[in-house]
Amino acid sequence: MISKLAERIRKKQAPIVVGLDPMLSYVPKKITDKAISEHGESLEAAASAILEYNKAIVDAVCDLVPAVKPQIAMYEQFGLPGLRAFVETVDYCKSKDLIVIGDVKRGDIGSTSKAYATAHIGKITVGSKEIPLFNEDFCTVNPYLGSDGITPFIDACNEFDRGIFVLVKTSNPSSGEFQDRVLHDEDSTLYEAVGFKVNEWAKLSMDGEYSNIGAVVGATYPKMGEILRRIMPKSFILVPGYGAQGGTGKDLKPFFNSDGVGAIINSSRGIIAAYTNAKYAKFGEDGFADASRAAVLDMKEDIRINALS
Amino acid sequence: MISKLAERIRKKQAPIVVGLDPMLSYVPKKITDKAISEHGESLEAAASAILEYNKAIVDAVCDLVPAVKPQIAMYEQFGLPGLRAFVETVDYCKSKDLIVIGDVKRGDIGSTSKAYATAHIGKITVGSKEIPLFNEDFCTVNPYLGSDGITPFIDACNEFDRGIFVLVKTSNPSSGEFQDRVLHDEDSTLYEAVGFKVNEWAKLSMDGEYSNIGAVVGATYPKMGEILRRIMPKSFILVPGYGAQGGTGKDLKPFFNSDGVGAIINSSRGIIAAYTNAKYAKFGEDGFADASRAAVLDMKEDIRINALS
Repeated sequence: MISKLAERIRKKQAPIVVGLDPMLSYVPKKITDKAISEHGESLEAAASAILEYNKAIVDAVCDLVPAVKPQIAMYEQFGLPGLRAFVETVDYCKSKDLIVIGDVKRGDIGSTSKAYATAHIGKITVGSKEIPLFNEDFCTVNPYLGSDGITPFIDACNEFDRGIFVLVKTSNPSSGEFQDRVLHDEDSTLYEAVGFKVNEWAKLSMDGEYSNIGAVVGATYPKMGEILRRIMPKSFILVPGYGAQGGTGKDLKPFFNSDGVGAIINSSRGIIAAYTNAKYAKFGEDGFADASRAAVLDMKEDIRINALS
Repeated sequence: MISKLAERIRKKQAPIVVGLDPMLSYVPKKITDKAISEHGESLEAAASAILEYNKAIVDAVCDLVPAVKPQIAMYEQFGLPGLRAFVETVDYCKSKDLIVIGDVKRGDIGSTSKAYATAHIGKITVGSKEIPLFNEDFCTVNPYLGSDGITPFIDACNEFDRGIFVLVKTSNPSSGEFQDRVLHDEDSTLYEAVGFKVNEWAKLSMDGEYSNIGAVVGATYPKMGEILRRIMPKSFILVPGYGAQGGTGKDLKPFFNSDGVGAIINSSRGIIAAYTNAKYAKFGEDGFADASRAAVLDMKEDIRINALS
């Protein structure tokens, strides 16, 4: 699966993934009002509004980017109707030939991780039938429980040609609380230790030059990104934290290998809520999808000039 | 919420939580066949079968135990129909006056953790309405992202009178890979560092003698349980790993405070699939719920004799 992602990035000249993390507060009033008039003040209304909002953004950007990353929490917060909107978003994005990275950050003990891997990147057997479920191409995974919590995801990558991104160094302000702790035995940090493990796991699911086992490293920590790029040469790095969280184009340079490959940069709010940003105010609320398109084009240019040249 | 759990444990004299982690392979053939004949070989059939199985077990044990812990992965693996069965399981357990611990192990950056907290232990606002969602009383949370990933859950605990259990030392074989690493600056391990943080977070949501902020520590690591019991005196410890994973009654002693309070022991397979165990074979497949009841009574006795005396 990673070779497919790398090829799409090359073809579109855009190592960019659009984070589909809709908050109801981002959705233009016109869409929300219509949904409430159809479904009442209900979860169905919220789910219907975010799905319509997503579709308009996807339509506006799908020719520019290789991938999207729906954050499942933003759908889970609307209960079962919200999760139906997640599934419909995944299906819609696939119909537009986009690669879907499910940002689900699952992880548990072995038998339970197997169930999560089945749910997100595998298929379940009922009677004599094998049925796909959330059907993402990649998903994000939490490493806190160690190898036996990760192995079932690697198995699913190999069985179903999928991929994962393991959290290594996250983009948030308090990520250092545990991840930056220096370990006694080897004078490395916890995030480096997780990086070394990712590099081991990577060997278990190679697909072309890269592995289906990637890593998440925040744009907000470019120096750590440089270290981790060296530790995990065969892993694609999924980089959140660009834009709204503070990461800039220049910060992204260390996440790429010297050939300009090996990283994909996420922007969520910065793209999907671009119309709320003064820079794109001219599009207005009705032009929210066009604002998203303009933000993608600007991000692409920022990366080309500041990260890849 | 923790005072409610402590009171129920005292009243039923059972620091026991039944893990509702149904695998389709545990469900008696009669139930699965009926579900497939009604719904075809579909996710709906699987979901209907596990819901019926859960209900029979809950009916058989609800007078004996204070709480249940459905593991959401086991439902998520059946897609949206599976998650509907999760919601219906939570509702059914609440109708039987059981406290529900959602084993969801969520955790993300702040704004995303807020969405997860809303989904699992909070309520969402749509228009002028506030709507409950998965509606668990407690949920489990992953600490890898640090305080800003945990704080939204603590806020939800305070706003909605709920609780969380933070993963500290998990029960699985490879949990030590990262959790047992010794930290350079203080000669403590990562799991101890997480334990110290849990003890700080605990102060932010006290409810009687204990805090709504608890911890997960595996029965399979009793010596670490003893250390962590001292580090987090105000936190209830949710203890998985008893029974099928290898933890015994004697291993549980260190997880309790000297007054015999402060821990709640989970058993999943050992109870819900008891009928598949030679010890309870006399109940047969049709008597699966009675076998579960017998296993709870045996577990209660094991804890009374070996852990609490």
